[in-house]
Amino acid sequence: MKNSNVLYQHGTLALLVPGLLDGTLTMKELLEHGDTGIGTGEGLDGELIILDGVPYQVDSAGNVNIVDDSFTLPFANSHFAAYNEMMDVEDIKRDELQELIDKKAASANTFYSVVIKGTFKNIKTRAVKKSSKPYDTLAKTAEAQSIFERDTVEGTLLSYYSPQVFDGAAVAGFHSHFMSDAHDFGGHILDFESVSGNVVFQCFDSLLQHLPIDNPAYKHHDFSSDDILGSIHKAEG
Amino acid sequence: MKNSNVLYQHGTLALLVPGLLDGTLTMKELLEHGDTGIGTGEGLDGELIILDGVPYQVDSAGNVNIVDDSFTLPFANSHFAAYNEMMDVEDIKRDELQELIDKKAASANTFYSVVIKGTFKNIKTRAVKKSSKPYDTLAKTAEAQSIFERDTVEGTLLSYYSPQVFDGAAVAGFHSHFMSDAHDFGGHILDFESVSGNVVFQCFDSLLQHLPIDNPAYKHHDFSSDDILGSIHKAEG
Repeated sequence: MKNSNVLYQHGTLALLVPGLLDGTLTMKELLEHGDTGIGTGEGLDGELIILDGVPYQVDSAGNVNIVDDSFTLPFANSHFAAYNEMMDVEDIKRDELQELIDKKAASANTFYSVVIKGTFKNIKTRAVKKSSKPYDTLAKTAEAQSIFERDTVEGTLLSYYSPQVFDGAAVAGFHSHFMSDAHDFGGHILDFESVSGNVVFQCFDSLLQHLPIDNPAYKHHDFSSDDILGSIHKAEG
Repeated sequence: MKNSNVLYQHGTLALLVPGLLDGTLTMKELLEHGDTGIGTGEGLDGELIILDGVPYQVDSAGNVNIVDDSFTLPFANSHFAAYNEMMDVEDIKRDELQELIDKKAASANTFYSVVIKGTFKNIKTRAVKKSSKPYDTLAKTAEAQSIFERDTVEGTLLSYYSPQVFDGAAVAGFHSHFMSDAHDFGGHILDFESVSGNVVFQCFDSLLQHLPIDNPAYKHHDFSSDDILGSIHKAEG
């Protein structure tokens, strides 16, 4: 049953744009689809990263919390880790690394995940701040986010790559979260200067896209007037 | 294992646009994900419809063939039928029926399927014509399609509805194929005037999107210069 070829996704990025932020999946349910993942909590409650089955949340105060099974999420990804060695890197700049990964991944049309363990320099992360009903739009939430920085930190970057044709459902391109080895720093990665460490890679042949079809706000929302792609790329870029 | 909440899709509509038409899934594999479905063969070889586990192909000469397990497809959908009664209709016009289904489905943001069994008036279908390598683009193939018409015919319409945010991966809105009870007429539905019969409905909470990640043409294609949405809506409308 643990199919490592499938990337699970609950919700779509599109539903964050107008602020459809009810928690529609529990962490327990998310973990049934993987031991590795990323996501956000109800109301955009921080940045989640699941490593070896443990779900860490970086909240907007910068605290790292382990959340329990009943924690709910409007949007999340998970999968069962079965990574393959890609390369070791030594003080490589972010854009050079990106190019190397693109080249070695050998397809822009495939969902895949990359994990980088190592020492990151001048890393900048953000964590969104929980809003309550009526929830803020993604653009408004992005304004209220907290930004965290470290000169040097050891930790794990977990990234999902999604093909262009799924933009809106997912973030086309890379979507990366971070957790320090000391479990005291993390969030959604905005930038880093360079990294030394090890890069592993896992390719998926399928996306299992699960939608919150019983959530009234999702069910009845008219997405036609939302600027889905513009808002996503402004907020997630 | 037969999960009737999941709609399976192999390939994306986007890959038909530049003519990535290798058959990358066998009918045997497609039937493992459902007893009901639609699709097309390698090189856009006709219009497929699977009803009660039997895969019928309408080829560009208008013949109806049952294809075997080794028949390959570049794009297809399937699911396990578990339909619920929606309504009986009496000589209802196509656009009125559409409105009623939209209303009763009660969500434009959910994948679902509709089956209509009955008597269709002035129905117009098409079947695409198989091309060989180098395959034609979707626009060119659409020019070479055959069109079939019947004044009155009894048969089954199978339709999948996909939410707007998945446009490009799927056809946003309805994608409908047809097969007559006599198994002598069918194809991709372009239009019909009215229908009398029974409408059933099945809602999915998940899309299992499978991609041909080992196909070299798919792997290496650069979709960025294709007019995906324009071409799809011109050809599939």
